[in-house]
This record gives sequence, C-alpha cells and structure tokens, in this order.
Amino acid sequence: MNSFPESLNDLIDEFSRFPGIGRKTAQRMAFFVLNSNTDLSNDLSNAILTLKSKIRFCEKCFGISEDVICMICSNPSRDDSKICVVENAADIYTFEKTNVFKGLYHVLGGVLSPLDGIGPDQLQISSLLDRVKPNDEVLVATNATIEGEATCLYIANLLEEKSVKVTRLARGLPIGGDLEFVDDATIMRAIEDRSAI
Amino acid sequence: MNSFPESLNDLIDEFSRFPGIGRKTAQRMAFFVLNSNTDLSNDLSNAILTLKSKIRFCEKCFGISEDVICMICSNPSRDDSKICVVENAADIYTFEKTNVFKGLYHVLGGVLSPLDGIGPDQLQISSLLDRVKPNDEVLVATNATIEGEATCLYIANLLEEKSVKVTRLARGLPIGGDLEFVDDATIMRAIEDRSAI
Repeated sequence: MNSFPESLNDLIDEFSRFPGIGRKTAQRMAFFVLNSNTDLSNDLSNAILTLKSKIRFCEKCFGISEDVICMICSNPSRDDSKICVVENAADIYTFEKTNVFKGLYHVLGGVLSPLDGIGPDQLQISSLLDRVKPNDEVLVATNATIEGEATCLYIANLLEEKSVKVTRLARGLPIGGDLEFVDDATIMRAIEDRSAI
Repeated sequence: MNSFPESLNDLIDEFSRFPGIGRKTAQRMAFFVLNSNTDLSNDLSNAILTLKSKIRFCEKCFGISEDVICMICSNPSRDDSKICVVENAADIYTFEKTNVFKGLYHVLGGVLSPLDGIGPDQLQISSLLDRVKPNDEVLVATNATIEGEATCLYIANLLEEKSVKVTRLARGLPIGGDLEFVDDATIMRAIEDRSAI
C-alpha cells in the first residue's frame, strides 16, 4: 500500500488545487481536518458554501459585496469624483488597508491578454466609460506587468476623449528597500522620476 | 471600510486555523474559492464532510482506515513479526512511500509529555504490549525530539521484559546533506555510530 484511504486522497486533491498549496501542505491540511473535532470540519464546510451563496458582485464597481451595491459605493462620505481602477476585487482591500484613498473603485476583472482571448469586451471597460463624469480623476492601479501596463495605456487613451484626469501609481524604490536588491528597471524609473527634497 | 464582507472573513478565519497557513495565504485561498465555479466549492465542502464521516481508526494499529482493520494490517503478505511504532498516523505514509519496511505499524497517538498531561495511559502503549509476541522486532520510530526519545526509552524498557527485540532508526548525516549545515548533535552521533566501509 502506498496511498492514503480514498476519502483522504480526495481531500488532499481538493486542497492541492489552491494556488500556493503544494501536495505536502495539502496533506498536512487534510490530516489537520482529520484530527480536529467535527465542529471545525462542519464550520469550514459551511463557510465555503455560505461564501459562494452570499457573495455577489457590486453592480456599480464589480467589487465583492453581500448586497446589490457594495459598502464602499454606498458610503456617502466617499469622494465619487475619484475612481481607482484595479485588476481584481482583492486589490481593493490592499488600498483600503492604508486608509489613504477616499474615492471609489472599479474592478476590471483581469487585464488585456490577447493570447488568452481576453480583449476589452471581456473586461469591465465599457462600464467604466459609462461611469466617469467630466473632470473626474481616474487612478489606474493595474499591476506593473506588461499586460497591466498595456491595459493602463489602453484605458488612458479611451478616457482622454472624455476630458478625465488619468493618473497612475508612482514607481520607485519600495519603502525600506535596500538599493542592493532593487532590479535595474526600478532603479531606472526611480532616477527618471526623482523628486526635490 | 477596512474589512471584507462577513462571509468572506469567516472563511479566511477558518483557513487561518490550519497549521502553516497564515492570514495572507488564507486570504488568497478564500479569494480562490470565491472566484472559482460552484463545482469546486461543492466538491471541497463535500470532501471535508465525507472524510470526517468515513475515516476511522484501525482497531489493531490505530492508523487511519475506512474499514475496521486497515489495509496494511489486513494484508497477509506483510511480516507480522515486525512492528514499527510511530507517533502519528501520518508518519505511516512517510515509511510506506519508501517501500522498504514490510512489517506492520502501531500508532501511539502522540508522545509522553507530562507538562501537557499526556502520560502512558493517554497513548496506545498498553495495546502495543498486548500485540507483541516473543521474538517480534519492534522498531520504535518516534521523532528525534526530547519527548520522542523519552517515549522511545519508556517503551523499550517495557518491551525488554517480554523478550522482544527493540530497535530504533539510525541517526547520522541525512543523504545529500552538506557537513557545513549539519548541527553538532548530529555530527556527534554520526561519529559515535560510524561504520566500516
């Protein structure tokens, strides 16, 4: 015998499908479920099903929400003249943690990637164009990848016609970063965009 | 707003309870469930419940099994005069992967740890003594920790009275290990137990 009982193998397979979870971690997780009391496994199983049934996409920003309009879009104290465009719903929480951005968000649902068959129609780009009003500021916060930059430029071009101010995140040295470990492209951008002290 | 919707937070909390899964990994896993199709979440949820209902402990070796007696104990081609004593059921599969040990197993369910209130009565020690026959070989394969070694010696003392051959795993340099990175205690044991070429 080389393998686990079938039901244990099944759960290991399921856990292995998660990103960043290898076979060995999945195995440790399955044994944890096995050795824990029945409450934990019931809670976990319920939490998974509840999540899928309760969470929907906000009809305005396409972030995640338990209501038709999410908590951010329905908050009257937020500045609706500033829209931060992100790739995925999870990115919203990266910004929210800092409490610096007080505007609204717009989730694209990915980036332009013609090889994967993802064009402008597969992303929430037309809904973004419908949302913006003249003199709004749109902060395009896609990732600093080739696809992210291409998507950023594509959106900036479309928004230019609407007399909207388009901005993007500053590039440079990360705070606490050591010069020795920074890549060349970041150093080049940090020199080009240098600022007065 | 700083936090996720409640149902998402609940699932992140559940995943965070797993060993080796931090808050950030739990968050990535919960978003993976959220973005995946309903089949995946149903499969995962079912696999967790099925595991808990189907798996029980083998009545002979206390390893995990879907039947009263596990596949290893019920395999007639295995050598029942050799018993490998391990701490946890998961350890069995570490040995089985190598296909070297052809005997049976016995799961203690932990190690002696008086401070945590774990004495001989909390472990499967008396059932081990009931199982062994004179002239059997018992390979005590507890971990190389202080508690593991203490448990090993405790079991060896009890088995001595039964004229059973008690052995333990060799200690020394791991295969592929670099001398530079091996700790002092291992080096000392490797010198003491040196063998002729």
